[in-house]
Amino acid sequence: MPAKGGAEAVSELALIERIGARARRRPGTELGIGDDAALLSVGGTAVVTQDLLAEGVHFRRATTSPRDLGHKALAVNLSDIAAMGAEPVAAFVGLCLPPGGLSDDAADELYSGMEALAERYGVTVAGGDVTGGPALVLAVAAVGRAGDGAAPVRRSGGRPGDLLCVTGALGASAAGLLLLERPELAGAVPTPVAERLRAAHLRPEPRVGAGLALGRAGARAMLDLSDGLGLDGGRLARASGARAVIELDALPLAEGVAEIAAAAGRDARLLAVSGGEDYELLAALPPAAVEPAHRAVPGRLTPVGRLEEGVPGLVAVERGGAAVDLAAGGWEHDV
Amino acid sequence: MPAKGGAEAVSELALIERIGARARRRPGTELGIGDDAALLSVGGTAVVTQDLLAEGVHFRRATTSPRDLGHKALAVNLSDIAAMGAEPVAAFVGLCLPPGGLSDDAADELYSGMEALAERYGVTVAGGDVTGGPALVLAVAAVGRAGDGAAPVRRSGGRPGDLLCVTGALGASAAGLLLLERPELAGAVPTPVAERLRAAHLRPEPRVGAGLALGRAGARAMLDLSDGLGLDGGRLARASGARAVIELDALPLAEGVAEIAAAAGRDARLLAVSGGEDYELLAALPPAAVEPAHRAVPGRLTPVGRLEEGVPGLVAVERGGAAVDLAAGGWEHDV
Repeated sequence: MPAKGGAEAVSELALIERIGARARRRPGTELGIGDDAALLSVGGTAVVTQDLLAEGVHFRRATTSPRDLGHKALAVNLSDIAAMGAEPVAAFVGLCLPPGGLSDDAADELYSGMEALAERYGVTVAGGDVTGGPALVLAVAAVGRAGDGAAPVRRSGGRPGDLLCVTGALGASAAGLLLLERPELAGAVPTPVAERLRAAHLRPEPRVGAGLALGRAGARAMLDLSDGLGLDGGRLARASGARAVIELDALPLAEGVAEIAAAAGRDARLLAVSGGEDYELLAALPPAAVEPAHRAVPGRLTPVGRLEEGVPGLVAVERGGAAVDLAAGGWEHDV
Repeated sequence: MPAKGGAEAVSELALIERIGARARRRPGTELGIGDDAALLSVGGTAVVTQDLLAEGVHFRRATTSPRDLGHKALAVNLSDIAAMGAEPVAAFVGLCLPPGGLSDDAADELYSGMEALAERYGVTVAGGDVTGGPALVLAVAAVGRAGDGAAPVRRSGGRPGDLLCVTGALGASAAGLLLLERPELAGAVPTPVAERLRAAHLRPEPRVGAGLALGRAGARAMLDLSDGLGLDGGRLARASGARAVIELDALPLAEGVAEIAAAAGRDARLLAVSGGEDYELLAALPPAAVEPAHRAVPGRLTPVGRLEEGVPGLVAVERGGAAVDLAAGGWEHDV
């Protein structure tokens, strides 16, 4: 966390000091905040990803609490590490402060949200940068290492004949967003269910354990569902040189998604296939690996389709064997 | 380089594709742009750093060309890797585009500046993220590995009795900035010298080879001079639990710094000690290591002071044995 050209306000330097004092160093991080760079034990191969979250694009401060923002900024990066079947080690947090800075309370909450998530996954906030700027922008990089006894899982290893399986349940984040935008829909489900759906959108949980288990169980390709099964399934299929078929009726819907979708006049399964930000994992498994994966993955693992020979990247969505046109359901084609 | 919540404009996705198509994968990067995360061979220990550059704080688009911005954003990160005595492997580039985006030409220039520098040091642009946003912000993370036969060099290993040595020459960036702000000063030096000074400010060169050589030669502590020898020397001294003494008359001045400082009515050596962004390396060397380091380091290596027993972090600046009060020369105390 080097200082920048003497340009920082005192508040930025004070914030750097506070972050450095609070960040706990966890196993795998030999040297954290306070030097020119961090030193991480990664056992040969480093698994590295970076994401930006910009105010007005990925979040609004009016509707996202600093704590949730800290959580989500780290969670989406840990999800990318999980999607490689890898184990996260450390995160680097670049924080561009808006004019007027952040209040001490807001900055503390943001880092508390991040530290709480980091603690659960044994991750160290090992560095980063704080600067003033024109708006609130968070840049988080995460570094992981290959899980024991398993090579990292790329997107490109899927083969025709593989089953496509998803962890957990889908549609929760999209339903949660509907609830946040249209609070009157909340009457459609019991209060704790509505709360879980909103939480799924605001504080997604990276599937670190499931990613490691899928890698060990023999997943040939994997990614995390950030843009929905339709778009992300197409990415996996294109990278793997195969065509994907998704069976809508096989999708595991999160509790309450059917009711919220109905109240909003939406098709629940189209919401689940096209809604983003579930951060569940999509894996291509050879048939023989499905049963071991079922036993190994914590929580639910559901076959939702297959890879076939055909135009690489095409995603055919079917319902009882008949093609479904997602364009009618808000589908956006990837470029 | 995962997509973000379906929120990208087509231009952002197109830019991601263009970057991915142009980024050359160099040795050490097993998997670059195009998956959830990159895979890097780092041989056990990953050396990781991250920096932000925000428009209006670190640069103005009116005075910084996109090519220079791309160069500098990567250079400051490679400099941090160099300061650990490590070898850079890959960089991750988060780009928050201003309203209206960047023109195709500007985006191409920015990445050309980065790729040209990456090529020189064998670094792969292995991932990142592009998003719209309220202003131009660059977040660059760099990952390196320990140099052959040398452990990474921290800030904290210096001991009383060590000599403080700097690579290259100082003051060039500060003099270059003076030239950019006051073009009328350029008459004080020949045109090629003025051009080199401006280039030192706009396109600093990370001292990768020198950092590796200093690590092998036995440097006990090291950092890069981003904020000037005064502030950065204090950081090294504080981390090492020692007091630093800098001898002003020993400072190696870059060619033309004396003339530009004189024309601007400034003391050249105070400019060199307090001016930032030289990105030379400051190393603490035990006396026996100075001669081997001289032989090993490409370019100049100059003893400029020493570590002593005393109040940790205090930097005493002397001129011929007499104390100099830097406060009079624009000195800002670190917090």
